[in-house]
Amino acid sequence: MQTPTLGQLATENGAQVVGDPDLAVRGLAPLDQAGPGDLSFLSNPLYLPQALASKASAVIVSPADLERIRADGQAGGRNWLVARNPYVCFARVAQRFDREANADPRTGIDPRASVAADAVVPASCFIGPNVVIEAGARLGERVRVLANAFIGAGAEIGDDTLIYANVSVYHRCVVGVRNILHSGVVVGADGFGFAPDIGPAGVEYVKIPQVGRAVLGNDVEVGANTAIDRGAMADTVIEDGCKLDNQVQIAHNVRVGAHTVIAGCAAVAGSTRIGRFCVIGGSANFAGHLNIADRTTVSGGTSITKSITKPGGHYTSVFPFTTHGEWERNAAIVRGLSKLRERVVTLERRLRGQSAGSNTTQDEEKSS
Amino acid sequence: MQTPTLGQLATENGAQVVGDPDLAVRGLAPLDQAGPGDLSFLSNPLYLPQALASKASAVIVSPADLERIRADGQAGGRNWLVARNPYVCFARVAQRFDREANADPRTGIDPRASVAADAVVPASCFIGPNVVIEAGARLGERVRVLANAFIGAGAEIGDDTLIYANVSVYHRCVVGVRNILHSGVVVGADGFGFAPDIGPAGVEYVKIPQVGRAVLGNDVEVGANTAIDRGAMADTVIEDGCKLDNQVQIAHNVRVGAHTVIAGCAAVAGSTRIGRFCVIGGSANFAGHLNIADRTTVSGGTSITKSITKPGGHYTSVFPFTTHGEWERNAAIVRGLSKLRERVVTLERRLRGQSAGSNTTQDEEKSS
Amino acid sequence: MQTPTLGQLATENGAQVVGDPDLAVRGLAPLDQAGPGDLSFLSNPLYLPQALASKASAVIVSPADLERIRADGQAGGRNWLVARNPYVCFARVAQRFDREANADPRTGIDPRASVAADAVVPASCFIGPNVVIEAGARLGERVRVLANAFIGAGAEIGDDTLIYANVSVYHRCVVGVRNILHSGVVVGADGFGFAPDIGPAGVEYVKIPQVGRAVLGNDVEVGANTAIDRGAMADTVIEDGCKLDNQVQIAHNVRVGAHTVIAGCAAVAGSTRIGRFCVIGGSANFAGHLNIADRTTVSGGTSITKSITKPGGHYTSVFPFTTHGEWERNAAIVRGLSKLRERVVTLERRLRGQSAGSNTTQDEEKSS
Repeated sequence: MQTPTLGQLATENGAQVVGDPDLAVRGLAPLDQAGPGDLSFLSNPLYLPQALASKASAVIVSPADLERIRADGQAGGRNWLVARNPYVCFARVAQRFDREANADPRTGIDPRASVAADAVVPASCFIGPNVVIEAGARLGERVRVLANAFIGAGAEIGDDTLIYANVSVYHRCVVGVRNILHSGVVVGADGFGFAPDIGPAGVEYVKIPQVGRAVLGNDVEVGANTAIDRGAMADTVIEDGCKLDNQVQIAHNVRVGAHTVIAGCAAVAGSTRIGRFCVIGGSANFAGHLNIADRTTVSGGTSITKSITKPGGHYTSVFPFTTHGEWERNAAIVRGLSKLRERVVTLERRLRGQSAGSNTTQDEEKSS
Repeated sequence: MQTPTLGQLATENGAQVVGDPDLAVRGLAPLDQAGPGDLSFLSNPLYLPQALASKASAVIVSPADLERIRADGQAGGRNWLVARNPYVCFARVAQRFDREANADPRTGIDPRASVAADAVVPASCFIGPNVVIEAGARLGERVRVLANAFIGAGAEIGDDTLIYANVSVYHRCVVGVRNILHSGVVVGADGFGFAPDIGPAGVEYVKIPQVGRAVLGNDVEVGANTAIDRGAMADTVIEDGCKLDNQVQIAHNVRVGAHTVIAGCAAVAGSTRIGRFCVIGGSANFAGHLNIADRTTVSGGTSITKSITKPGGHYTSVFPFTTHGEWERNAAIVRGLSKLRERVVTLERRLRGQSAGSNTTQDEEKSS
Repeated sequence: MQTPTLGQLATENGAQVVGDPDLAVRGLAPLDQAGPGDLSFLSNPLYLPQALASKASAVIVSPADLERIRADGQAGGRNWLVARNPYVCFARVAQRFDREANADPRTGIDPRASVAADAVVPASCFIGPNVVIEAGARLGERVRVLANAFIGAGAEIGDDTLIYANVSVYHRCVVGVRNILHSGVVVGADGFGFAPDIGPAGVEYVKIPQVGRAVLGNDVEVGANTAIDRGAMADTVIEDGCKLDNQVQIAHNVRVGAHTVIAGCAAVAGSTRIGRFCVIGGSANFAGHLNIADRTTVSGGTSITKSITKPGGHYTSVFPFTTHGEWERNAAIVRGLSKLRERVVTLERRLRGQSAGSNTTQDEEKSS
């Protein structure tokens, strides 16, 4: 790996150098761990003192923060990489270092892989040992499929996608370009679709074949052990730029809008549509057949049971945690809340009877 | 594939044709997408206008809905497949088409599979590449095990069961006939059983060997990445006809009664018994050692912390979601609910003192 | 397998025999299922009558329980294994029987495994079919890696660790000695780290390379389909003696303290530190960047949204379940709790105005 200069990194990332453009940047480190040769970053003005105290040879800063530093007369004797969004600039530089350090030079098909005769696997791909690629599957350029993964018949995988070990992509599913699927991901298992029928003792279930697909857009990342079901008739769709964390469950016919992020263990029930640019917290869950507006934020652990039509809102439904003893007391009252409310209504009536005999309880009722 | 006639489909499904029994049915489609040659279905009278407007050549209807259509004088000039339960009839016809279109004709053992010398694998089975079947395992007729799945020593798999890629079935576990296990399913991992012991600084845990099995009945479907643990001494049991969605967790010694459905990400803790014909919502969770009555419905996201003895009930425990700002206000009050209640009690006392000096607060207390 | 005597089991476990030390112990069974030759155990004095009625040839008891039995004059004519902690003694004896009965005598590398030329795999290891061990990985003595598992480049696995089928351990991750990783476990997938950037229509995400590791201490057990992400820059750490159940999610840079147990489907968001000797219930979830004190107990289904500083507490946040009808009534009131509270405040003001015209509402407000 060739050590880049600060000037090269500036050019690559549309940033400006203040200081020495020929400084050799050997690595990246947080402000408090950086040493000579390291590049660090300041993404929050709160950490300005740490930036000034850091031993980093250069620091990525925003124009505004550099102004502040200059105003304090402390910009000299140090190198700055001035970027519109320092955190994004850091991420891109980190990607560059990671690519150089960890690039997997392997290409070709491991002799222990099983690739169907009519599958399309360009020579730029790497297919690891025991990978199975079934009939009619088509891979793009530079796709990497690590050990023991399975690509079903007729599936399509876009250019530059990375599929980790033990992933399963079912037949006919589509994965876009530059996707990353982590180990244990399952794309395209059958949706949970059954027709209830009256059996001799109760309701039994008749399977509805799931003949839709799971379709992932471009630049999607899917975390370990996440499952995205295929659609029943139409497709399940994850649009461009979505990031799904580990253990997420996406049911059949769901659509997740572009650039939405979903944290670990969240679950989206069948046919729900989540908008674009949403942020879904971990362990959140959505009922089926909902519409969730663009730019919605949902807190971790929240259950969304109705559609959300207004874009940009933030919703929460977590019972506040307390010590178990307090919880027991509060929970008992929650169970009897309607009784507590009746007692308040009774008090209001009595007090009104005492003072004026008026009868506005009805209105107050409505307002609650 | 030979195109079936409407009459054939009627015979196969115990339905009646009103119209042309020789109509060739080329495929299935929803009412609004169907065209000539398609069969569609009307399972809800609300969609009656769509059924009448549909371009489908034939529609599956209930006797009652056909009566309605006839009363409107609109039954003529179209073909009807009259079935007791149109949705179930649709599911069965869809299964027929799916079977014809997607039947996997492969049988035999892929040369890259590893099958123990004493394992029983009938010639009607298909064993995919890199499948590992260990000593003493026994497969029924027409079992399909897709790539990279693992069947442990002494496990038993019933006739016509389909095991997708990357499934793991541990030693001695039992899977019934006509099961479907989706990718990432783990059957029979060790239950979470430890004996707590006092260590030098706190409680440490000594593993209790899990020597029971996981036993799945017939016609069970298990979704992607679902885990069903083996029992500690006795078995974990999933009875006939159960349908488990993705990412479900079934702990050791659980019993799930026949024809119960469990949606994605639900979790059942150890030794809990769930009745028959239950409907468990997604992300619901059950404490351990509970008994849940037959035909219980549990809403998504609900925590069940006590046994439910009365059959047929519907239970919920979700904090209602609101905007985050409202939630913050309400949550603060929930944390202090016992104080709010005290204030109501105080008001009641004062009001009583004013009016009569009586002392019935005690009784009211009880009633809440 | 050689049948041990009661005296041998006593010596092995630091217990005392009261009765016949030469009794041959053929197996273990619960009190109500034990027969001649069986050893059973009494860990709770509530079951004393069952212990006396049991057909077991010997019973593990605590010194205190044996005193009780003697006081009742019922200790004679039976054999007792007296142990400080009967349940732990049972667990250890059960481990002994399990080891004798189910020891896997296989060693060596299956010819269908793919082991990199420079990987270290001692002759005492067993490497199953289709296992892939990449460059520079190092295994300790007696490690067993079952079929179709993946060990990434440079990973380290400690002595006596058991890795079940279809496990994935990413590059450079570290697993300690005597670990058990169940099927579907993923160690070291990328953490969920992205830098938000303003795109043309909303926030988009730039991947931050995850270059830390996931590091598991000694005596850790990880349940089926659990995922433990690698750290962003520093490591994700699971300390010695932790037990993680199935489907658990551990995000990047989390640290779980020694001897903490986490039940199924629990999720810990990024950078949260959980103390030592904690007990985390199933389906619980933790927000990111929290500190949880040692010996904390968290109930199942609970959302922890703030740090917990006081050790040894027990916390809960579950909305109490009720019938769905009651829940609907109570949920509506919860949504409007701040209004209900205002009504109580109004009542307090009115009543105060009536009685004294005083103005202490402010103080009462604070106390709630």
